[in-house]
Amino acid sequence: MKGIWLENQRLRLRADLPVPEPVTGEALIRIIRAGICNTDLELLRGYYPYRGVPGHEFVGIVESGPKELLGKRVVGEINTTCGHCHYCRTGRPTHCENRTVLGIINRNGAFADFITLPVANLHIVPDTIPTNTAVFTEPVAAALQIQEQVQITLNDRVLVVGDGKLGLLVAQTLALTGCDLLVVGRHAEKLAILQTLGIATAPATAISERSFDLTVECTGNPAGFDFARRALRSRGTLVLKSTYAGMLTINASALVVDEITLIGSRCGPFNYALATLAAGQIQVEPMIQGSYSLNQALDAFNHARKKGTLKILFEN
Amino acid sequence: MKGIWLENQRLRLRADLPVPEPVTGEALIRIIRAGICNTDLELLRGYYPYRGVPGHEFVGIVESGPKELLGKRVVGEINTTCGHCHYCRTGRPTHCENRTVLGIINRNGAFADFITLPVANLHIVPDTIPTNTAVFTEPVAAALQIQEQVQITLNDRVLVVGDGKLGLLVAQTLALTGCDLLVVGRHAEKLAILQTLGIATAPATAISERSFDLTVECTGNPAGFDFARRALRSRGTLVLKSTYAGMLTINASALVVDEITLIGSRCGPFNYALATLAAGQIQVEPMIQGSYSLNQALDAFNHARKKGTLKILFEN
Repeated sequence: MKGIWLENQRLRLRADLPVPEPVTGEALIRIIRAGICNTDLELLRGYYPYRGVPGHEFVGIVESGPKELLGKRVVGEINTTCGHCHYCRTGRPTHCENRTVLGIINRNGAFADFITLPVANLHIVPDTIPTNTAVFTEPVAAALQIQEQVQITLNDRVLVVGDGKLGLLVAQTLALTGCDLLVVGRHAEKLAILQTLGIATAPATAISERSFDLTVECTGNPAGFDFARRALRSRGTLVLKSTYAGMLTINASALVVDEITLIGSRCGPFNYALATLAAGQIQVEPMIQGSYSLNQALDAFNHARKKGTLKILFEN
Repeated sequence: MKGIWLENQRLRLRADLPVPEPVTGEALIRIIRAGICNTDLELLRGYYPYRGVPGHEFVGIVESGPKELLGKRVVGEINTTCGHCHYCRTGRPTHCENRTVLGIINRNGAFADFITLPVANLHIVPDTIPTNTAVFTEPVAAALQIQEQVQITLNDRVLVVGDGKLGLLVAQTLALTGCDLLVVGRHAEKLAILQTLGIATAPATAISERSFDLTVECTGNPAGFDFARRALRSRGTLVLKSTYAGMLTINASALVVDEITLIGSRCGPFNYALATLAAGQIQVEPMIQGSYSLNQALDAFNHARKKGTLKILFEN
């Protein structure tokens, strides 16, 4: 089969990859759509060691597996779990000690003709959700994880820092809570996507320090963290939603004096993500800026890593 | 009156200080006992700008104020509040935007013959609590703040990192929750105080990484933070209880991947602290290692800042 192969910070298209063979409990899935995520770009930059097929945002058709899934469009949770470690036994399977992660840790990913995943990871895509929308299920779920971790009330003043792919999704999922929401970013054309949806945006110069109950860092750079920190009230919460290329330097004493909470946030609930997409509560298609075949792998990645690019898809 | 004066990182005994005059709502308190805290040592090192009388852990006798307090032994909450800012109106008065803090921010502290504090800040010390115990009310309250911020269950594996003054108090207050508690430290003689109380202790070499649900950083140095972080399980919580002299460098991506929570923790509930001291649930007097008069101010501070020293008191 065809697939994009990452090795030593280089990508190449391979046509010689074996079709993966599902083991007990797994399904074979033919990929019809996949999205390039910042994590893929970071893998390419070598920030995490990975050798294999990248890609973890996908929509596919089940080719072999349980009868009720055969021929269905599915999306899939990216962490496979062992079922018996401390985390699996205590309801935190995304932290399974023995996990593989699709296209990230020890499992070939979705920039290929086929993948395998445990049947338990799959969710049928409702017919009403277009494939170009369903391919956002994984990042929408990750955005919704914030609400799983932090109780957000109508009275909370919430600031999303960053107007990239992640920031635009996080903003839309936070808007569902009814909180007092503001998004700060540098790109008028990206902020315009949110404005169309009735979400308030502002340039950095318009943000007062020490005035938000919750800030969400979606830039992945230290300047964004610093901005999110300074915007927080005492006893406020800062959600770290982006991974960072390097180390981050923080004023720990100020965290103590102001009793700030920092929370790292990763993968989230697929069922809730699909429900919000089915209900049309999250608009993702305006974020699509290009669509490529696997044969155009390098063009697709070059487009995706151009500064300011939103979502680039593979169609198969 | 006499008092210890801090200015430009130098201490001196002054006999020419005016007795402070209580304004409406305040009481005048004659200090009979005061404790030197690490924050006092940091003020002396110049980590925070402060000019005036330091000292915020005290027991005193009310000399003027409401009739029901006159002649009573009292301890006092150290943050004075305005009553009308965002924090005061939303039940977070220790974060009052207009606060003074006894011996720390804009209010002369307890290393003197007299202080003033708002009557609302004062708590009568029950007769059953000796003065040498009551002088620990403020740091015991600060330790108890952890339980106010984080829900701790019997099943939680909790690690206290550090066996200094703060670590010994935090360990004893956490023991009240019934959690599965361990304290790691470098000083056999300090850990022995906890062992006598039935609290488990261990050297650093005996601690497994990624095995605690909650860790509390009580060392105030980056190596202690790093240790507390590495000991945490995924989805674990790290409480920052110490202030830090400089900046702290953290691996933010790992916080995201492991969905770690960091919480800064400062001042806590005096009423609960007095209750635990009255019930004999916290043993503080074994931590006292010296007692001085105000005339011996420099000797007292020299003793307190000797590495490994626990509590040094002033008697008046």
